[in-house]
Amino acid sequence: MTNSIETYQKFIGKAIEALNLPSTPANLYEPIRYFLNLGGKKMRPVLTLMGCELFNPDYSNAKDAALAVELFHNFSLIHDDIMDEAPLRRGHETVHQKWNSNVGILSGDALLIVAYQKIATYKSELIGELLPLFNQTALQVCEGQQYDMDFESRDNVSITEYIEMIKFKTAVLLGCSLQMGAIIGGANKTDAKELYNFGVNLGLAFQLQDDILDVYADKNKFGKQVGGDIISNKKTFLLLKAFEDANTNQLKTLNNLFSETDNTTKVNGVKTIYSELNIKEKAEHKMNEFYTIALNNLDAIQISDSKKKPLLNLAYFLMGREN
Amino acid sequence: MTNSIETYQKFIGKAIEALNLPSTPANLYEPIRYFLNLGGKKMRPVLTLMGCELFNPDYSNAKDAALAVELFHNFSLIHDDIMDEAPLRRGHETVHQKWNSNVGILSGDALLIVAYQKIATYKSELIGELLPLFNQTALQVCEGQQYDMDFESRDNVSITEYIEMIKFKTAVLLGCSLQMGAIIGGANKTDAKELYNFGVNLGLAFQLQDDILDVYADKNKFGKQVGGDIISNKKTFLLLKAFEDANTNQLKTLNNLFSETDNTTKVNGVKTIYSELNIKEKAEHKMNEFYTIALNNLDAIQISDSKKKPLLNLAYFLMGREN
Repeated sequence: MTNSIETYQKFIGKAIEALNLPSTPANLYEPIRYFLNLGGKKMRPVLTLMGCELFNPDYSNAKDAALAVELFHNFSLIHDDIMDEAPLRRGHETVHQKWNSNVGILSGDALLIVAYQKIATYKSELIGELLPLFNQTALQVCEGQQYDMDFESRDNVSITEYIEMIKFKTAVLLGCSLQMGAIIGGANKTDAKELYNFGVNLGLAFQLQDDILDVYADKNKFGKQVGGDIISNKKTFLLLKAFEDANTNQLKTLNNLFSETDNTTKVNGVKTIYSELNIKEKAEHKMNEFYTIALNNLDAIQISDSKKKPLLNLAYFLMGREN
Repeated sequence: MTNSIETYQKFIGKAIEALNLPSTPANLYEPIRYFLNLGGKKMRPVLTLMGCELFNPDYSNAKDAALAVELFHNFSLIHDDIMDEAPLRRGHETVHQKWNSNVGILSGDALLIVAYQKIATYKSELIGELLPLFNQTALQVCEGQQYDMDFESRDNVSITEYIEMIKFKTAVLLGCSLQMGAIIGGANKTDAKELYNFGVNLGLAFQLQDDILDVYADKNKFGKQVGGDIISNKKTFLLLKAFEDANTNQLKTLNNLFSETDNTTKVNGVKTIYSELNIKEKAEHKMNEFYTIALNNLDAIQISDSKKKPLLNLAYFLMGREN
């Protein structure tokens, strides 16, 4: 019998409720409590618990590491929201919007440190393994965010650079979440690293799927505005690939569409180019490449298939595949 | 023979030069390099080296911990400068001024993580002792900064609250710097804790001295504008003590002086009240209390007096006392 994703999510939800942050200074901790209560799928801590359970049935040992990745993720969201001037997160006001930027900066800082406190709860030997991985990942997430901001003002971003950016900004934290769980569960180094790679490649596939869905999703099922990336000139895999493959005429059309003010004309125009260049198929091909590598990573781990079932189910779930 | 402070400062300077931060993304790491090169007294890492040397002649073992506290301190300055909208730091443009707030936020975040990477270079057993101390201190520094900002808009700040604020914002990091050195040097828990307390109490004495000098320093020797705290209505120990001790008339005068636009009239007016209430003497008394406790902390450490000489000299130096 395998646990459902909801089982892990509930476990994490309770752990967050039990965090017991200080009450004062209220302006430091109240925004943290507010933000942690906004919901979210809690995928990263779920991965940590699953990563542990793959090697040790008692996944509760991974609770504090799961909290660490969830707190870190929320720290990065609070600071990213300031940088992106985002008014909303998960349908609610962002911290800097509800309070102000200073509150966002400082409560974000505190949240990052609280994440490190959760890592410090383990025995020294484990801390010695977890801390370097967590540090490296955290720094890569910052680097990914910087590349993402840099790309906004550059017009020569390559597909390779884009993949590197989403790898750092999003995918490595999924790998780290899983590997931290594996380390706590007692995995050997080879298996722990395979699990890390599974997370990174699944993360890359998931991010590419996100790029594709933003253009081609059924608008009744998609949570966001379909075509939002096109309207905001966002440099996704699809747009960068179109720029790479376009002929002179198509390039000219694409560049003109950048300043098109009618959203329907803009979205349809870009989609026409995408269609001429088979961009959707090319993106799906790249996504499937990463997805296949991820499944191979999981397959290579020296553990029975039955124990891998929850992670396989999660991969199916994230990628919207049949179970 | 004891090393001069310059010896330790040079050692740290070389370690910072050898940091070898990545070159890309340039917008993330260039601001860090810029800020670390602005100089500064490097008191905190010097304390870490001295704290180690008290128990072990080879203070070079403490290099990475010394870097960690210096990097942490610089992280907190970069973020504080954004929050305080400070255009200058050490006579040069602040990071958010030279680049922008987003660069300040993200490069500050990265710097904090690099500090944690320095802690992660030690053996697991040491990491297990260093990390909780560093985490607790880092969180207290955030809390101190929050209290400091909160106090700006409050008119009922007590002396007790003020002491707590400067303890968290400034003093605990001095204690932590020393204790991390002591831990690496192999001190027992009692001695390491006494050394921590020495740092905290010395830090409190030093901060009160700073409050006093801001009003009473020889303007030819003082690096900043004498009376700057009075002009900006800053809630220092002196002002809070004056509010505590003032009679109705003096309170009224103080409140009127808050909105006085002529700086000379304002500074002289507040100094007259201070003089009537013996505020300078009261602040010096409090400062000396902390200084005496600090010296007693140092005295209690079970190490020969000759080995304590560098720390005693540093205390004399920081407090401007005769050697």
